[in-house]
This record gives sequence, C-alpha cells and structure tokens, in this order.
Amino acid sequence: MSLLVFGSTALDSIATPKKKNPRLLGGSGSHAAVAASFFAAPKLIGVVGTDFPRKYISLLERHRVNLKGLKVREGKTFHWAGEYEVNMNNRRTLSTELGVVEGYSPVLPAAHRKAKYVLLANNPPGAQEAIIEQLDKPKFIVADTMDLWMNVAMNDLCSLLRRVDMLVLNDSESRQLTGDDNVVSAMPKLHKLGPRYVIVKKGEHGSILSSRRGLFVAPAFPLAKVEDPTGAGDSFVGAMTGYLAKTGGPIDASIRRAILYGSVVASFCCEGFGLSRTTKTTRTEINQRLRALEKMTRV
Amino acid sequence: MSLLVFGSTALDSIATPKKKNPRLLGGSGSHAAVAASFFAAPKLIGVVGTDFPRKYISLLERHRVNLKGLKVREGKTFHWAGEYEVNMNNRRTLSTELGVVEGYSPVLPAAHRKAKYVLLANNPPGAQEAIIEQLDKPKFIVADTMDLWMNVAMNDLCSLLRRVDMLVLNDSESRQLTGDDNVVSAMPKLHKLGPRYVIVKKGEHGSILSSRRGLFVAPAFPLAKVEDPTGAGDSFVGAMTGYLAKTGGPIDASIRRAILYGSVVASFCCEGFGLSRTTKTTRTEINQRLRALEKMTRV
Repeated sequence: MSLLVFGSTALDSIATPKKKNPRLLGGSGSHAAVAASFFAAPKLIGVVGTDFPRKYISLLERHRVNLKGLKVREGKTFHWAGEYEVNMNNRRTLSTELGVVEGYSPVLPAAHRKAKYVLLANNPPGAQEAIIEQLDKPKFIVADTMDLWMNVAMNDLCSLLRRVDMLVLNDSESRQLTGDDNVVSAMPKLHKLGPRYVIVKKGEHGSILSSRRGLFVAPAFPLAKVEDPTGAGDSFVGAMTGYLAKTGGPIDASIRRAILYGSVVASFCCEGFGLSRTTKTTRTEINQRLRALEKMTRV
Repeated sequence: MSLLVFGSTALDSIATPKKKNPRLLGGSGSHAAVAASFFAAPKLIGVVGTDFPRKYISLLERHRVNLKGLKVREGKTFHWAGEYEVNMNNRRTLSTELGVVEGYSPVLPAAHRKAKYVLLANNPPGAQEAIIEQLDKPKFIVADTMDLWMNVAMNDLCSLLRRVDMLVLNDSESRQLTGDDNVVSAMPKLHKLGPRYVIVKKGEHGSILSSRRGLFVAPAFPLAKVEDPTGAGDSFVGAMTGYLAKTGGPIDASIRRAILYGSVVASFCCEGFGLSRTTKTTRTEINQRLRALEKMTRV
C-alpha cells in the first residue's frame, strides 16, 4: 500500500579521528526513505536548497523514492556537521545550518494525500502535524521524534502524539518525556499521550514494542564493527514502516517481523558512513541477515 | 545429573535511601545454589563463621541445598556492606570483612568429587581452580568471575580459563579482559582464553552466548520495578547451570532454554532484597514467567 515519508533531507559532514566525510546525503527523511525502499516505493516530503547535489537526487531515484514532494527552494540545504571521539561512542555537533528549512511549511501534492501508511520521521512536531492535517483517511501513522523537541516544542509534540498510531523514540527520550527511567513502567505513560503502539529503541541492545498485545522484546543485529551509527534510528523506523506498508494487512500480524527488518536495515546503516552501506545492500542480503537474526534469537 | 556449586556464602548489609537491610543471606554461592535448586539439588561448597545464623542454614536446606561441603570455621562470616543511591542505579561498597574466608582452601567431600556439572560461582580464581583439581571426570564446568580478579589475580584467572567449558562475565568485565568494547568482536578473544562457551551478561539488556553454533541473543525478563539487583548475575548462572544439570543431555540441545531460565530466575532475584523474593518463588511461577518471556520474543 502507499507509503509517505516526511523527514529532513540534509547534508551531513561527519568527521572521525581517522577520516573526514564532508556533505554526505543525510537527514531523517533520506535515511528512512532509502530504508523503506527495500519494501515499498516511498513518497518523500521535504525541502532542499539549490546546492543539493544532483547525484543525491539520482541516488534517491534509483531507490524508487518518489521525489514529487521534495521541494527545491532558493538557498542552502540543511547542513549538519559533527565529529566522533576516538572510541566512536560519543558524537559531538560542530555546527547546524538550517538553510532552506527555515520558514518551510510542508505542502502535500494532491496525489500524496491519500497515502495509507505515513512515517513522520524526525522533524519539528508542528510540521509533522501539518502533514496529518493534509491527509485523507490514513491507515497507520508512525512518528519519530527527538529530545530537542521536548526542550523547545513540548506543546506541539503533545498535540502531535494525540493523532498518531505509533510513537518511536529512544530510551533517553522516553526518560525525558515521562520522567521514568524504567522503560517498562514508562510504557503506560507513553500510551497515555496518545499512541496505541510505542517502540523504545535501545541502540545496540535492541528495542521494546508495547501494544494492546503486550510487550515484544526485539534484538538488534549484533555487529562486530560499527562505522557510523548516524541515521540508524531513521533506517530502523523506515524499514519497519516500509514493511508494514508492503504487507498492508492488520498491524499486529506483521509488526514483529517489521521490527526485525528495522533492526537488520539499521545494522547495514551502521556499517558505513551516511548512506554508503545502506545504498549498497539488496533485499536478498537483507533477507539473509533477517534469517540469521531469527536463528540467533530462536530458543 | 549431579551439580556442584562453589561460591561465597556471605552476609550482605544493603542500604537504600528508604531502608536498611542488615545481614541478609548473600554471596555468589548462596544466590547460585538457591537459583539452581529449582532444577537440581545442588551441593554447595563454601565456608561460614560460627556467627552464621541458623535460619539461613534452614533456608538453604529447605531448598534442598546439600550443605555437607559448607565448612563452619571459628570466626566471622564474610560480610559485605553497601548502599544504593537514590536512583538505585549506583551501588557503593561501604565495607568488606573477609572473616573466615581468609586462609580458607576448599576441600571437596569424597562424595562430591564425581559431580558432573560444576558451577564455579564468583570467587578467587585460584580457589576455583583448586576445586577443578579435586574433580573426577566432570562433564561441564562453568566459571563466573569479576573485575576484582582481573586486577589482583590475572595469572590465576588465565590459568583457570584454560580448564573450564564456559565463562560467564558481564560486558564491562569482557571489555577489561579483552580491551575490546564491542561484545561481538570480543567473543573470539574470550574463546582464545579457553572456554568453548562464553556468555556476556548485559543486565537489563539480556545476554549473548557465543559457541561453535554461533551467537544466541537472549533477552532479560522486562521488569517494571527493580528492588535490588544484588545477586542477579549469580542467580542467572545458577538457574542456567541447574537446568543444564537437570536435562543432562548435550549442552547445545538445552543451553538456549537454560539461559532463558537464568533470565527468569534473575528477574525474581531483582524483585526483592537479597534472596527474599527468589526464595518465595516456585517452579510453577518460574515456568509461567518463562512462557511469558518466550511469548515476548517470538516473532
């Protein structure tokens, strides 16, 4: 079924002690759309500047990402620069230039309004809700968010959460949103904010889904080497929503396998800088890793 | 099949901001033996002082722990005192009194030497190896350890590891022992030290088993409230080894379920101070929680 992905389309400059990687294709929308593309053709909504490299347009098109809703505005593409410390565990933001994102309000092309599956990847919650306003009978809306919006736009975030089916956030964000540092006891508090489905991501430790059916404790794919975790969370939620859109049936029937697909595509994301590894993988390779992951968790 | 548990039998005084819990039954051997007792009758090897409360002897006996190898020496029982900070995440040692542990060398009663399953719960590695010296054709030897021994008895620890079938340690100890902070890439380095089976525990995030059959990514049982995690690791390894001893067949056929039983009994341990919750549970309740955990992880 049809899949809409709203998120940021950015240029990321990621430095490590060994290497500089300037102006990689990044942003929550890019990572999520490419991850989703292995399962369904996503319609990407976002904005880029006139400096956005043609090669990234081609790359997204090769991944059958529909770019009709990707607006090009006069000015510079959103740019994020950061660096990792020696042990690759800590990331530090060096600079953030909003560019054309400033003053942008998303407008859905008419053909996109009937999308059934909608992923609101990380973005200001007011803009995420503006997408919902333009939808015509969506079936399942997933929202990702981040700590920043809890600090600067909590009212918008609470308003958004009353209108989404699923919230995806990480463990530190769950703590910040509920004041509860136990993931399990935080779940009812997160449901009270609106979403019937909540996933708390725990990075290399996997994730936990809470729904009316109870908890699902999901593993991450164990990796011997992590090159760059930037975008792993977006890849996770993108692949998961893509798989749900592809199967199209009742959410409860496919959500657990969808989460495992999310873990697998996120693992590819971590194995290269930016989207370099994700864009090299194939559905066959993804399925192989899925089978390996299921084998590693089956009792 | 017969099960031997060698570990410390201690008195633990555990304080929290709300409560003082003086002189609880504690120690790696007590936790591991009680946890194992739900599956097989363990023979406990250790030492206590003449001050060791009679009620704790009765408690261990009620759990069909064979105490023929629990030596009573003139003097004081090993005593550990610690306190938790407000958020229960940090534990601080207030005092450690070795008492009768000082100068103790374990001697196996003749009837114990033919034990087939042997759990060397956390203790000085030299003493753990002294147990191995006295065994007559053991089938499977599991060793737990801690960071302290890496600091003060690394040679003894390396000597021990060449003689055990399985090593169980936590993620920070794996890092300290291998210098590798990635659990997956640390595994081959841990195998090189001797053990064919390695389990790295990650507390609330579960554990990972590595063996010739590959990796097994195991969940922890999700708890909404943790009262006191002291002894959870010992309970984990105790229940796991107890289940292996009970089934008695090839390790690979039962190790995954054994680990889940370890997770479940460890979760009961966390729900009360010392052994208070573990000693109240039953095999029926353990099986219920095991089925719930399997349901939470099945795709």
